[in-house]
Amino acid sequence: MRHNSSVSPQRISKVLSRLNSHNVEALLFLDIKNVRYLTGFTGSDGALLIGKRQKLLMVDGRYTNQAKREVHDVEIFQYREKAEGIEAVILDTSLKSIGFESTAMNVSNYMKLKKKLKSVKLKPMSHEIDTIRAVKDKMELSYIRKAADIAHEALGTVYEFIKPGVSEKDIAIELDYRIVRAGAEEVSFSTIVATGVNSSQPHATPGSRKIKNGDVVMIDYGAVCNGYHSDETCTFIVGRADKKQTEVYSLVKEAHDKALAGVKAGATCKGIDHIARTCIEGEDMGKYFTHGTGHGVGLDVHEAPRIADKSEHILEAGMVVTIEPGVYIPGAWGIRIEDMVIVKENGFEVLTKVPKDFTVLH
Amino acid sequence: MRHNSSVSPQRISKVLSRLNSHNVEALLFLDIKNVRYLTGFTGSDGALLIGKRQKLLMVDGRYTNQAKREVHDVEIFQYREKAEGIEAVILDTSLKSIGFESTAMNVSNYMKLKKKLKSVKLKPMSHEIDTIRAVKDKMELSYIRKAADIAHEALGTVYEFIKPGVSEKDIAIELDYRIVRAGAEEVSFSTIVATGVNSSQPHATPGSRKIKNGDVVMIDYGAVCNGYHSDETCTFIVGRADKKQTEVYSLVKEAHDKALAGVKAGATCKGIDHIARTCIEGEDMGKYFTHGTGHGVGLDVHEAPRIADKSEHILEAGMVVTIEPGVYIPGAWGIRIEDMVIVKENGFEVLTKVPKDFTVLH
Repeated sequence: MRHNSSVSPQRISKVLSRLNSHNVEALLFLDIKNVRYLTGFTGSDGALLIGKRQKLLMVDGRYTNQAKREVHDVEIFQYREKAEGIEAVILDTSLKSIGFESTAMNVSNYMKLKKKLKSVKLKPMSHEIDTIRAVKDKMELSYIRKAADIAHEALGTVYEFIKPGVSEKDIAIELDYRIVRAGAEEVSFSTIVATGVNSSQPHATPGSRKIKNGDVVMIDYGAVCNGYHSDETCTFIVGRADKKQTEVYSLVKEAHDKALAGVKAGATCKGIDHIARTCIEGEDMGKYFTHGTGHGVGLDVHEAPRIADKSEHILEAGMVVTIEPGVYIPGAWGIRIEDMVIVKENGFEVLTKVPKDFTVLH
Repeated sequence: MRHNSSVSPQRISKVLSRLNSHNVEALLFLDIKNVRYLTGFTGSDGALLIGKRQKLLMVDGRYTNQAKREVHDVEIFQYREKAEGIEAVILDTSLKSIGFESTAMNVSNYMKLKKKLKSVKLKPMSHEIDTIRAVKDKMELSYIRKAADIAHEALGTVYEFIKPGVSEKDIAIELDYRIVRAGAEEVSFSTIVATGVNSSQPHATPGSRKIKNGDVVMIDYGAVCNGYHSDETCTFIVGRADKKQTEVYSLVKEAHDKALAGVKAGATCKGIDHIARTCIEGEDMGKYFTHGTGHGVGLDVHEAPRIADKSEHILEAGMVVTIEPGVYIPGAWGIRIEDMVIVKENGFEVLTKVPKDFTVLH
C-alpha cells in the first residue's frame, strides 16, 4: 500500500494515546491543518474522526478524488453538507463520547450536531490538542528549512528596490513574486513592508508610501513549502541612521539575542518572553513592546507554542519557534528583529538566514 | 465629522430595522467582512455590537489605532481576549436578547459567553443576516467593476505564456504578479490554472504540468480592489481542438448564455440554476456538472446569493453574481465558462471583459 511520504503513521497513534487520558472514545478534528497533519489531505475543507476502531476522513464532492489519492489507511466519506456528514458518520458508529476541536467548530454546526446526536457526549477539547503539531519530525523540519532558504534567496533579489523613491507596495509585490518564482507554493502570510512612520504599527499593510532617506524599513515575510511556513523580520535603515534608531536597534537586538540564548528543551515559554521583555523594560521601552516574543511555526505560520507572558507551554526539542521582540514608537517608527529556530536539547539552530546586525542600506 | 467614504450610514440603519422582526435588542457581528461592511474597519479581527442604543466595535490592541482612523460614529473598545471583550461590553449594557452570527462564532467562545452572560439570551441567526451585503451600492459596484477591469488587463499580458511547454504554475505566478502590478490589493483567491487532465477537477491547484498541443487550459482568476473581489473563468484550447472539446464547449456556452438570459430582478436563483442544468442534462452531461451555477461576489469572493438547486434566494437589482456552468469529464478534461454580472431590473450587465467565444490559442 502506498503511503503519503509526508505523513508518519505515528502521528495518529500519538493522538490515539491521548484518548484514555481525556476520557473520550474518539476525537473529531475540524481544523484543516490538523486534518492535513494526521492524514496528508491537502484540501481546504473536511473533518476527521479518529477512534480506536475508526479512521474516517469526511470531505465534500470537490475533494473526494483528491482525498483518495492523498490519504491511505483512512476511510473516505463524501458529504454534501458538513454537519450532516459528521452526523451520519457518527450515527453509524456506537461512539458515546467524542472530543472535538471547539475553536474550529462553529456554533451553527455544533447546534445541528447536538440536536441530532442526543445520545453522544460531545466534549470540547481544543486546549488539550492545540500542541499536537508542535514538535516537528525530520521531514517537517526539511520543509521548513527549505521555506526559509527560498524566502532568503528571494529577499536577496529585492535589496536593489529598498531605496528612496520606491513604495512599500512595490517592494512587497516584487518580493512576493520572487518568493513564488524561487519555488514556494505561496507566500507565508501577507508580506509586511512598512517604512518610516508606518513601521510604528506592528502589522502595517504595504501602501503607497515611498522610502525617504533616514527611513526605517521593516520587512516581515516568509515562504510556504509542502504546506510548511517560514517567518522572518528584517529591519533596515536607508541612507543614514540617527542616534535613536541606532540605540533602539541595539536594544531590540540585545533582547533578541538574550531570548535566543535561553532557547533549549525544557525552557518555559513565559521565561523566554520574560528575558526579552525585561531587557526592553530595562531601558524604559516596555510600553512599546506590544506583542509576545514569539510563536511556533509549521503548517500554520502561527501555531503552538506561544512565547508570551501568560503561556504555559514548555519548549521541547524539535519545536520550531520565532523569537521576535520589537519596539514601536508611536508617530516615529518601529524596529522588530525576528528569527525562526529549531529548539534543540541544549540550545537551538537558526533557520532564517539574513544576518541581524544593524544594517544601513545605501 | 469625517465619514469613511466607502461606508454608507444607511447600512447600519438597515440592519437596525431588522431587529424588531427578529425579536432581539441587538446584533453581534463576528464575520469580519460584515464588520467591515457596516463600519469600514479593514482589520482582520474584531466584533461589532449594533443595537438601538449601541454601536460598538471591539478590536485587539493591534487594531485600536487603525479602528479609530477608519471608523466613525461607532465607539471603539479594545480587548486583550475576544470572548472576554464581548462579555465585558455586553455586561456593560442592559441588553437581554442578542442575535449573533452562529456560523462566525466558534464553540469555544460561545461556551465562554454562555457561562458569563447567564441572564442574556444569545440567539443564533446567521441564516437571517447572510444576505445583508447582497445588494451593492454605487460605490461598491465601482470597486467590483475596477477589480474586473484590472484582472482583465492582467490576463491580457499573459496570453503569450499560454503555449506548449509552459507550466500551470508559471502561468499562475505571472498572472498573479500582473494582477497586483496592475493595481489590485491582492488576487481574489488562489488562481486556478488547470491544463489537460487537471482541468477535469473543478478546483485544481496549479502545478508543474506543462501545456501540450490540444490541451484545455482553464483559468479561474480575479482581483481585489478596496476589499471587493472579481471572479471570472476562461477556458481555452491550445493548438488544435478536437470534436468533443468543440461540442462540449458549445454546450457549456449555451448553458451559460441561457442562464445569463434569465438573470433579472425577481428571478429565483434556483430557477437560474435549473436553466443551466437542464441545458447540460439535455446532452446527458448532467453528472459532469458537479457544482452550482453561480454565487454572489463582493467583500467575499463567495457570498449570498447562492445560485444552486436548493437556493431560496431571489435576485434583486444591484446584486453582483457569477454565472459559471461547467462540465468535467473524469480522466479527460473540463470546461467552465464564468462571467460576473450586475443584476438589473430588466436584465444584467456583464462586468467581466474576456469574450467567451470558443478560442483556440496558437
